[in-house]
Amino acid sequence: MRLSQFHLHTSKETPADAELVSHKLMLKAGMIRKLAAGLYTWSPLGLRVLRKVERVVREEMDASGAVELLMPSVQPRELWEETGRWEKFGGQLLKMKDRKDAWYCYGPTHEEVITDFARDELASYKQLPVTFYQIQTKFRDEIRPRFGVMRAREFLMKDAYSFHVTDEDLGREYLNMFNAYCRIFSRLGLEYRAVFADTGSIGGSASHEFHVLAESGEDAIAYSTDSDYAANVELAEALPEGERHAAEESLREVETPVQKTCEAVAELMGIGLERTVKSIALMGANADGETEFVLALVRGDHVLNEIKLAKLPGLGEYRMATEAEILAHLGSEPGFLGPVSPRQPVRVVADRSVAALADFVVGANRAGFHLAGVNWGRDLPEPETVADIRNVVVGDRSPDRHGTLGICRGIEVGHVFQLGRKYAEAMKCTVLDETGKAVVPAMGCYGIGVSRIVAAAIEQNFDANGIRWPESMAPWRAVVCMINPKKDPAVTEAAEALYRELNEAGVETALDDRGLRPGAMFADIELIGIPHRIVVSERGLAAGTYEYRARTEPESENLDTAGLKARLGL
Amino acid sequence: MRLSQFHLHTSKETPADAELVSHKLMLKAGMIRKLAAGLYTWSPLGLRVLRKVERVVREEMDASGAVELLMPSVQPRELWEETGRWEKFGGQLLKMKDRKDAWYCYGPTHEEVITDFARDELASYKQLPVTFYQIQTKFRDEIRPRFGVMRAREFLMKDAYSFHVTDEDLGREYLNMFNAYCRIFSRLGLEYRAVFADTGSIGGSASHEFHVLAESGEDAIAYSTDSDYAANVELAEALPEGERHAAEESLREVETPVQKTCEAVAELMGIGLERTVKSIALMGANADGETEFVLALVRGDHVLNEIKLAKLPGLGEYRMATEAEILAHLGSEPGFLGPVSPRQPVRVVADRSVAALADFVVGANRAGFHLAGVNWGRDLPEPETVADIRNVVVGDRSPDRHGTLGICRGIEVGHVFQLGRKYAEAMKCTVLDETGKAVVPAMGCYGIGVSRIVAAAIEQNFDANGIRWPESMAPWRAVVCMINPKKDPAVTEAAEALYRELNEAGVETALDDRGLRPGAMFADIELIGIPHRIVVSERGLAAGTYEYRARTEPESENLDTAGLKARLGL
Repeated sequence: MRLSQFHLHTSKETPADAELVSHKLMLKAGMIRKLAAGLYTWSPLGLRVLRKVERVVREEMDASGAVELLMPSVQPRELWEETGRWEKFGGQLLKMKDRKDAWYCYGPTHEEVITDFARDELASYKQLPVTFYQIQTKFRDEIRPRFGVMRAREFLMKDAYSFHVTDEDLGREYLNMFNAYCRIFSRLGLEYRAVFADTGSIGGSASHEFHVLAESGEDAIAYSTDSDYAANVELAEALPEGERHAAEESLREVETPVQKTCEAVAELMGIGLERTVKSIALMGANADGETEFVLALVRGDHVLNEIKLAKLPGLGEYRMATEAEILAHLGSEPGFLGPVSPRQPVRVVADRSVAALADFVVGANRAGFHLAGVNWGRDLPEPETVADIRNVVVGDRSPDRHGTLGICRGIEVGHVFQLGRKYAEAMKCTVLDETGKAVVPAMGCYGIGVSRIVAAAIEQNFDANGIRWPESMAPWRAVVCMINPKKDPAVTEAAEALYRELNEAGVETALDDRGLRPGAMFADIELIGIPHRIVVSERGLAAGTYEYRARTEPESENLDTAGLKARLGL
Repeated sequence: MRLSQFHLHTSKETPADAELVSHKLMLKAGMIRKLAAGLYTWSPLGLRVLRKVERVVREEMDASGAVELLMPSVQPRELWEETGRWEKFGGQLLKMKDRKDAWYCYGPTHEEVITDFARDELASYKQLPVTFYQIQTKFRDEIRPRFGVMRAREFLMKDAYSFHVTDEDLGREYLNMFNAYCRIFSRLGLEYRAVFADTGSIGGSASHEFHVLAESGEDAIAYSTDSDYAANVELAEALPEGERHAAEESLREVETPVQKTCEAVAELMGIGLERTVKSIALMGANADGETEFVLALVRGDHVLNEIKLAKLPGLGEYRMATEAEILAHLGSEPGFLGPVSPRQPVRVVADRSVAALADFVVGANRAGFHLAGVNWGRDLPEPETVADIRNVVVGDRSPDRHGTLGICRGIEVGHVFQLGRKYAEAMKCTVLDETGKAVVPAMGCYGIGVSRIVAAAIEQNFDANGIRWPESMAPWRAVVCMINPKKDPAVTEAAEALYRELNEAGVETALDDRGLRPGAMFADIELIGIPHRIVVSERGLAAGTYEYRARTEPESENLDTAGLKARLGL
């Protein structure tokens, strides 16, 4: 491609309303242009990258045995009512009425449509297993569309759905898809993790998310330093601590006139934060369904995990206690709360790490005072409930018992689910098994955010000058730049020859024949992130060399033809 | 592709509600499945064909210098209000409201979005000319969606838009696109015609439609037998006739008691239909805007063309006259009307061919009677207006004066327009010209109905057994069929080897390893239209031959390897 014939339209200004690096760089590079909230046009440059991602996804899906089809984006209400999701899906579902007043939605996902397809097309176990996929435009009416194509309303997605007679076969295909996803993200040149995940609104049982690792990621991921284990921080289990050591200190009151946080108390007392305990006052329900005051305890250096907490008996629908409720039960204002000698009985829910403490510090239930040297069984009863109610932290043991946990941030770009029979059952989809009996097939579903990957890749691959594309996603792998072509026809000739030669050798190469000055030309090439830049100049021609620079290297080098080809893997 | 791994799902039953052959065959072959009115899922088989078409379109658009981008399908109301089309576009525009109560539509076309893109992206004449295209999903809320994907509501379209400083440059690109379209339809192996067209609702000036010729086509096309001329029948000009010959007969009344049509009168009198004249009573307006009674005359063997008629002065908003109006002006009931001696003055608008008649037959304005031997200037005044107001017929002179006209039927699959400055002006899109002055660019727009082409190709290529794909569109060019593979492992081995060899040689080949009996297998292969069928059997192996059959040939032949390769162009 000659860049003079390609509508390249970069900008020097940094867009004011873009927060994420990828959003800024995609706008500056002219890859996308906003049409309306959450709606973007992919420019020729942006589309080249999007198509690269699409191709890798398609090739690996095909290689995994999935067959591609294409479902409509507009879906009739009736199907969504069969699964109950017409109401349940919520505000993200963009609904519309056609000229005959029939209701439709712009498909945010295709479980209903594929299950409708399957109940017509699949009659016998002989047609199973089968995995259908499509690469198709979806719409989700986000409340706050932002971050460019990272969270757009209209976006390109690869969604796949598999059908199986047995759960075992679903498990086999789940693994097959899992492996295909690993190949996809590896081929795309991305650093990623497959993490255990909550199934969210799609429903079903086993599920993994695939995250591209990047500091700007919205999700925190806990991973083992020594194994493949990874999970959303909120879902990773904090394993039980070691044995509680024996009490050494006696109970004493410490004056803490303005120290209302664990951090402040620990600093005042000159002790480690891990010896302090936070008391969080909640209202839950007892076994009879009556309101119950609960004190949840986590160590001062830990964070309460509300998802884990809500899974405990009586805490499914807990809320924070009011100041009046706290005063009635503990006789104190917040900032000095603790489990010792409450005014009225309270239920104590202690995190495993708190239950393992001796000689710890809690609020004294008296304004301006904390208790130190507190010990279970001596100063207060053993806690009614001991459970994992905190977020894991760096250095925790890995839940799979291999190594310790690190925490990184990730951007979710893929998701594999074992849906089970939820949709097939709701939509009365059956196939005949080997004995001639009608059975409801088990389903899997497997999504990849194709357009989101483009943004996620940038979040992981950029520097001050712009994007640094992995080779597999770059709009072109290489670019040939001409210096002063008008002054010296030999430069044009040599550049054109090299451009043709590289393309013929299979290195997708652009020719920068726009006639820009070197500074502006190089700035553009760095901004749009071409991995290999080759400069043809009068001086270089005289010396028989090209000036070569890899996008990831700080310096350029002068290479002869053989050296250049080696850099390009030829 | 092994068909055992491909979700092929043909049906023996002919769908009851499908009218068109293509619709029937696509359902029987399992290429598409209906989701709702005008909404179809493309099965793996159907999608393979759709992608073939898409690829040819993309390759030729790229080769023509157009650059691909991708615009959103959801478009904000504000843009459509700038061009006035939010209201004017009519019921085909599917409107919807998002969760913030902002209005959008599902784009039926993208003039507004591309012009919005252009006014931001294009600043200078240096960036022009440029042609952007996309291959993208559109929605038009048809009142009567039918004929399968031929007239679906959601469909795949290639739309392109070009921008130019001068009209001349627009004309150049129009020709460039015209030629690209010719290459596309030629490569797809379709018999087609480029026809002059009305610009319809898109607006603008020059315009051609591309039609795939097929008997089932909705549009009648007039074409020259000796040149490239082709036009919609309604738009083709009927050239002036030769000189009027001198009157030979005298005026006489003929008794026609029940003969109310030209056909009946001609039969009764034993004369040619071309000597009779139909009188159509209309109400138009005179130069002062007052209602005026008009008698439009066309030959008995011709059909009045309402589009041409409505272009005449005073007839822009004509309507049929009522029986009372007819009685008042002509003194007769319909069936016996004529221009001779009306009761009140009438305006006579004669088709050119009627004005050229002598000794002709018209109604007598008296129930049960016609007049014969009628001559202009003698029996009635020369007509006030002589114009082309009829449809052309087979054998007319071609409007380009080369050869005579034939008439065929076509399916519109492409359209090129010179839009001019209508959209750019409405949306205040300007670029700076060479003198630094802001000018409104001229625009062209160029569409191809990608999904419709699939159906149109079938309308042109089928027989009693199914589809006969042109090679460029076939899901696979060849298929290797195994006879009784379980009985003889040598058959499997030879078939697998041939399958691999052909694919490696670049002939996209499927392997029918589904284990069907020959009859069912062959029926499927013919139905889905694979151009080359190669059968591997025990008997053939013994003789060193394959049984080969081209989809377009009635008989198969036994060929050795060299003969087979020759048939496949290897």
